[in-house]
Amino acid sequence: MKKTALIMAGGRGERFWPKSRQNLPKQFLSLTNDGKTMIQLTVERILPLVHLEDIYIATNASYKNLVLEQLPGLPEENVLCEPVGRNTAPCIGLGAVHINHKYEDAIMMVLPSDHLIKYNDSFAETLAQACSVAESGENLVTIGITPNYPETGYGYIKTNKDDTLGKSFGVECFVEKPNYDLAKAYVESGDYYWNSGMFIWKVSSILTNMQHLMEDTYTGLQKIKAAIGTPDETAVLERIFPNFVSDSIDYSIMEKAAHIYLIPGNFGWDDVGSWLAVERVKGTDASNNTLTGNVVTVDSSNCTIEGHERLIATVGIQDLIIVDTADAVLVADKKSAGDIKKLLAVLRETDKEEYL
Amino acid sequence: MKKTALIMAGGRGERFWPKSRQNLPKQFLSLTNDGKTMIQLTVERILPLVHLEDIYIATNASYKNLVLEQLPGLPEENVLCEPVGRNTAPCIGLGAVHINHKYEDAIMMVLPSDHLIKYNDSFAETLAQACSVAESGENLVTIGITPNYPETGYGYIKTNKDDTLGKSFGVECFVEKPNYDLAKAYVESGDYYWNSGMFIWKVSSILTNMQHLMEDTYTGLQKIKAAIGTPDETAVLERIFPNFVSDSIDYSIMEKAAHIYLIPGNFGWDDVGSWLAVERVKGTDASNNTLTGNVVTVDSSNCTIEGHERLIATVGIQDLIIVDTADAVLVADKKSAGDIKKLLAVLRETDKEEYL
Repeated sequence: MKKTALIMAGGRGERFWPKSRQNLPKQFLSLTNDGKTMIQLTVERILPLVHLEDIYIATNASYKNLVLEQLPGLPEENVLCEPVGRNTAPCIGLGAVHINHKYEDAIMMVLPSDHLIKYNDSFAETLAQACSVAESGENLVTIGITPNYPETGYGYIKTNKDDTLGKSFGVECFVEKPNYDLAKAYVESGDYYWNSGMFIWKVSSILTNMQHLMEDTYTGLQKIKAAIGTPDETAVLERIFPNFVSDSIDYSIMEKAAHIYLIPGNFGWDDVGSWLAVERVKGTDASNNTLTGNVVTVDSSNCTIEGHERLIATVGIQDLIIVDTADAVLVADKKSAGDIKKLLAVLRETDKEEYL
Repeated sequence: MKKTALIMAGGRGERFWPKSRQNLPKQFLSLTNDGKTMIQLTVERILPLVHLEDIYIATNASYKNLVLEQLPGLPEENVLCEPVGRNTAPCIGLGAVHINHKYEDAIMMVLPSDHLIKYNDSFAETLAQACSVAESGENLVTIGITPNYPETGYGYIKTNKDDTLGKSFGVECFVEKPNYDLAKAYVESGDYYWNSGMFIWKVSSILTNMQHLMEDTYTGLQKIKAAIGTPDETAVLERIFPNFVSDSIDYSIMEKAAHIYLIPGNFGWDDVGSWLAVERVKGTDASNNTLTGNVVTVDSSNCTIEGHERLIATVGIQDLIIVDTADAVLVADKKSAGDIKKLLAVLRETDKEEYL
């Protein structure tokens, strides 16, 4: 069966300020040593399975040019512009009707655009297994990351190991971010996986489920589909899409539908959730520093420093994140990496929106 | 008696990197909120006592243009260019023969160019008292700062409170930087003062002492003096000056000569020895931060941050010094403020001399 993909690239990624900005979110940044952006890496790693012309990018209209610049060869009509953000369910619905319009039915992989994966071969193999399971029925397949420590920042998915289908396990339930003790129990049980936000299904399967579980949105999506390729396409999208209820695909479909399966993934996944992730991604030197660009350190350790053009020079510092850009430099304690949003709030309040 | 001044401005001030550079040492920087540079403030505060045309600036030839730019109206011939640095004794000798050439005899004040003084009126009064003592004989007068805590980073001067002359006390001896216990005893005794490096004497007095205590240098200085105003002036200076023994005026003269007096100074003196001094000079805000320029902080305290053009944004940091410039930014722990020289050494070793 034809394989297609929808890459979700509408996020704003405030946690990577000052490198990420309103007009340059995380998925369009390079956070690795190879210079490739997150979305470029995302496309690159599915090209063994999906032709470029069958890859759709769902994003905000203001990022359309960025997408086309970073993904040369991608057909312009494959950039699906959400008029407003309505979480993942309407976004995926929009992708599904476009693929449905083009191919009637096909395998549809849904992938975030801002995660990193270390072992691309293993990832492609897992995806291929997921495609098999998806193709063999009305199954909705997700990839669950085998947890190797009790992370409290991720959602978990509980499987039933007695219910197998190909390489996959039946899903019992989706669970919210746990506290530490619960996370520990999850990891030790062997039944739980991290929710990666990656899904594989037939377009017909997801649309059937949407028809039953999110009826209003489904009706709207059919109107949007009817306008694809007509002069009214944009007008219809802009009229209907904003009325969709904002919900995640997990909540709208995955937690309610039947035939939910999970394929375990072991391919060095990282959601790169904050500047703290950079040391995992890039590795550290003998002083436990992760230094990029024009940086000189003296008696400094356990720091992540991203230089831009100017020299960053440090003396006697520990546990800091320093990120330089043309017009702003961030100096944050690693313990406060999650508080960058507080900083952006202050910028808004103090008439410094130019830096957002 | 005519009053003249020699301001010593040859220092490199590496401790204020990255704001201070080889081509812009500390004395040419503004470290206060009024935007005036250290040397401008130094000249300004003696203008009630000395005419601008009687102020001499001893400096390195490469800083001559900076001096003339920052001190408009200063006669060009008053900028005395030391061909090489030979510490304070030859520098002061050079100033002395120039003043001797111009006025035969005069009061000569010798002042560092890179200290700050809070109470200018009180300073001028102290200087005037010093001039009286200097004029009334062959006395060599220094200003000693009344210590208000046991600083271990300064030299001290011991006085004999029974030996008074005008407002001054006889000097018993100069002592090196003490350890903490010794410094504490010095402060408690009431006999010791901080060595400020400011001297007041008649030109005739200092030259007579040089003739006896640094004979070779004195002989050379007379040759330099004979060439002043002739076409050979620069050539003679450049031939003779580099041969002078490099010594401080304290060691060469003050510790050996007779008639040494000290006037206590209580005018809010600060030698501004490192970035740590900036919080004393500029004061701190409610979070104990000293912020200058384009800076936004969240949950940050006890930091000194000097912004340049770009935004400096901090989250959750404490006890840091951050200094931004066009081509380099420093992030240092306050405890390591004295280690900036280590950083400059690394810059030299790693082919980054452009930043020195």
